[in-house]
Amino acid sequence: MNNINSTSFHTIDEIFNPASIAVVGASPEIGSIGYHYLQYLLGPGYEGQIYAVNPRYPKILDLPTYSCLEDIPGNVEYVISCISAGGVIDLIKQSGAKKVKAVHLFTARFSETGDPAAKKLELEILEEARKQKVRLIGPNCMGIYNPKAGIHFNYDLPTIAGNIGGIIQSGGLAGDFVRFGALRGVSFSKVVSFGNGLDLNECDFLDYLADDSDTRVIFLYLEGVQDGPRFISLLKQIASHKPIIILKGGRTFAGCKAAASHTASIAGAADIFSQVLKQHNVIRAKDLTEMIDLAVGFSMPAPVKNKNITMVGGGGGKCVLSSDEAEEAGLCVPALPIQVVAEIAEKEPEMAQWIGNPVDFSIMYGRKISPPLMLDLLANSPEIDLLFCNITDDNPFGGDFWVKWIQNEIDQYLRIASLGKQQIIVIICNPQLTQSAMNNWRWITLAKQRERLIKAGIPVFSSIKRASRAIYKIADYYEKKKTLK
Amino acid sequence: MNNINSTSFHTIDEIFNPASIAVVGASPEIGSIGYHYLQYLLGPGYEGQIYAVNPRYPKILDLPTYSCLEDIPGNVEYVISCISAGGVIDLIKQSGAKKVKAVHLFTARFSETGDPAAKKLELEILEEARKQKVRLIGPNCMGIYNPKAGIHFNYDLPTIAGNIGGIIQSGGLAGDFVRFGALRGVSFSKVVSFGNGLDLNECDFLDYLADDSDTRVIFLYLEGVQDGPRFISLLKQIASHKPIIILKGGRTFAGCKAAASHTASIAGAADIFSQVLKQHNVIRAKDLTEMIDLAVGFSMPAPVKNKNITMVGGGGGKCVLSSDEAEEAGLCVPALPIQVVAEIAEKEPEMAQWIGNPVDFSIMYGRKISPPLMLDLLANSPEIDLLFCNITDDNPFGGDFWVKWIQNEIDQYLRIASLGKQQIIVIICNPQLTQSAMNNWRWITLAKQRERLIKAGIPVFSSIKRASRAIYKIADYYEKKKTLK
Repeated sequence: MNNINSTSFHTIDEIFNPASIAVVGASPEIGSIGYHYLQYLLGPGYEGQIYAVNPRYPKILDLPTYSCLEDIPGNVEYVISCISAGGVIDLIKQSGAKKVKAVHLFTARFSETGDPAAKKLELEILEEARKQKVRLIGPNCMGIYNPKAGIHFNYDLPTIAGNIGGIIQSGGLAGDFVRFGALRGVSFSKVVSFGNGLDLNECDFLDYLADDSDTRVIFLYLEGVQDGPRFISLLKQIASHKPIIILKGGRTFAGCKAAASHTASIAGAADIFSQVLKQHNVIRAKDLTEMIDLAVGFSMPAPVKNKNITMVGGGGGKCVLSSDEAEEAGLCVPALPIQVVAEIAEKEPEMAQWIGNPVDFSIMYGRKISPPLMLDLLANSPEIDLLFCNITDDNPFGGDFWVKWIQNEIDQYLRIASLGKQQIIVIICNPQLTQSAMNNWRWITLAKQRERLIKAGIPVFSSIKRASRAIYKIADYYEKKKTLK
Repeated sequence: MNNINSTSFHTIDEIFNPASIAVVGASPEIGSIGYHYLQYLLGPGYEGQIYAVNPRYPKILDLPTYSCLEDIPGNVEYVISCISAGGVIDLIKQSGAKKVKAVHLFTARFSETGDPAAKKLELEILEEARKQKVRLIGPNCMGIYNPKAGIHFNYDLPTIAGNIGGIIQSGGLAGDFVRFGALRGVSFSKVVSFGNGLDLNECDFLDYLADDSDTRVIFLYLEGVQDGPRFISLLKQIASHKPIIILKGGRTFAGCKAAASHTASIAGAADIFSQVLKQHNVIRAKDLTEMIDLAVGFSMPAPVKNKNITMVGGGGGKCVLSSDEAEEAGLCVPALPIQVVAEIAEKEPEMAQWIGNPVDFSIMYGRKISPPLMLDLLANSPEIDLLFCNITDDNPFGGDFWVKWIQNEIDQYLRIASLGKQQIIVIICNPQLTQSAMNNWRWITLAKQRERLIKAGIPVFSSIKRASRAIYKIADYYEKKKTLK
């Protein structure tokens, strides 16, 4: 695939990796977005040249500060515009003169306002940019997150790069996607928020990430698609070798209205969109949390082989609901392998007819078949590929005893995971905590154990339902991929 | 309704409010459940007499300790059995002699094991209990949580009573239901975990809570129903005046198998069950989290009037997805009332065509229509009953500025809530936090603000989807209630 489309002057890869960046509308004022864009670059340590541009300040955050783009002595490859809409035409002209490759317009209040004059200005900006051979990202967006290059578009984002790519139209959701994903251990290759997509749009970025060797999976949040035929053709080409996951905003009447006033997107007919995705094996995410669940699932080292799972841990009620939720999500909870049942029978005959899948750990208390032993039996079974581990946090114990119990359980899961025979997935509940609850032994313990697992590269989900839905979709993707080939 | 069924010797109200409790199998060992049951009573300060029974210890936790029930000098109204299955028949005999009203059998490993001998023993226990005029709760369960009486069945449960009742077959889920609910500000009248339901079962407890003046809403988690006709007749009688919410475990093949080995329940046909619930206006919860969301919703002071909501806060992407999720849940996101639009137009004409429902706070930055002013306009509209407030945590700011921003936003929601004109519902995201993340300014702030809201009695949900699904079901209940009358 060619990642330079007919209107390109600079490749998107050049744009994502600029040697110098000017923040126009930079500011020392914490209430100004120009202040934060400087911090986004300074915090993670962008190594290229950073210039602050603002005629009102002689110096900002100890950076070389200029009153306009033209005054900057060196080259400027990339501009972040934090000025208001009225100054953008002039900025594009200056950018052309400086041979800037791309201007990212955080600047908003264009077509999304519904005001015809603002819409007209937007088109004039596009015209000027074409004339000046300057590419545009935006307007009305957060721009680029490229951890390898040290370019961030928000606080608290990982500095270490991974292989999940994102094309997230909304700036707020782009930040949430990376931030929430990072908490779950996901790391990213490149993420872009492109707002109104006046010049570079979802197709351009999709085309780019398709060829980007750092990106293994592509996530999109879209409110509308500007060039339907090109978009469909790209999906068709890409989804067979790189998984694509799409969350579509603007599925309802109220959602379409909101999309129009957010990014001026015209949301298409939801059912046609769904059909197209299905046809090309593109995964549909239902909400942002599912996007993140899928990012966690796709970050696992190997593809999911099939839809059979074995579950362990938790008390009886949790086992019942877990079975229901896994099967309702489309997964299969088969009986334990015959060999495993035979081994249980050998050690403790009366347990062989009681223990099933899910394996209820609470019935093993004081028995010869202990949870660690049971985990070994399961780990040694070649019939088991996926092990869902419910933390037995629903046991009735308290304080130190409970803390130790949970810690031992995680020790066992880590031990089994390190054998490398199965993919282990751990479920830790995630109730809403108040600040006081954050100081309670129970919730501190769960957060601590969650961290241990994530650091060891083990996916952690907040419920069997969420884990099952994500794993089902991933297994289904790989299954269909074989058929479609 | 009569809360004493034909086999009753003691009313369930007497059983829930015993003047004295003996923990048989009490223990000073932290690994023993007998230790924890004593703590469940001592911690919240049960005011009746507590006796520890265990022949192996002269004294346990400074409590009067006896080697058997018969040795206790005073009356014993309620017994918690933590001994193993083999000793239960004798315990029931002793209980009869002491005129104990009810024995709660935490003791398990009966019919749920699938072992015919264990099933036989279970039936002998029932026979003996009938003979001795002793009621049974369980076996294989956590028993009673009655905060008014200071009787708890787990750690970290609220000591203050509320009006949510629970009949939760599984012990683990009973604990989670109360614990997770409490974190959300829910308080409870009485909750019972009854396990295998050998004597007192779901019908008996339902009948009891129907007449209990402290209980305003009844939640059930059931794996099976023992007496279908009686259960249906009770639903029919009760649901028209007290909301009933049911989470059914054992909806799938794997779930039924798990239910059989958990509480020996025979799960019925899921579709017939669904039809019955629908017919009698009983609410079906999909999972434990939805149970808790519904408990939060039903804890609001007034019934939900209709399915129209107005949403505020959050950036553009959040507004788009919020609209979709609310409408997909069945709620309606109507245009802003004409009067509100007119008032916006008066203050800032060009905003009148841009601001819609949801009200995107991020477009108001630096405008004459500020979020607080907008909230006032909405609060004064008689057409708005329900206000969903998305925290604008997706804004791109950081550190102190962000912290203050969020705090100001909550201040405003609290101010509008205190006007008492509308029901305010606040949405705060709830990503999975590691222990390190618990020390981050962003997550500390959200937990702090969540706590402020909950303390002020305002419902907080983790997503628009969850809030919408719960509110839809509640609104639908009240709508149907009018029709059914």
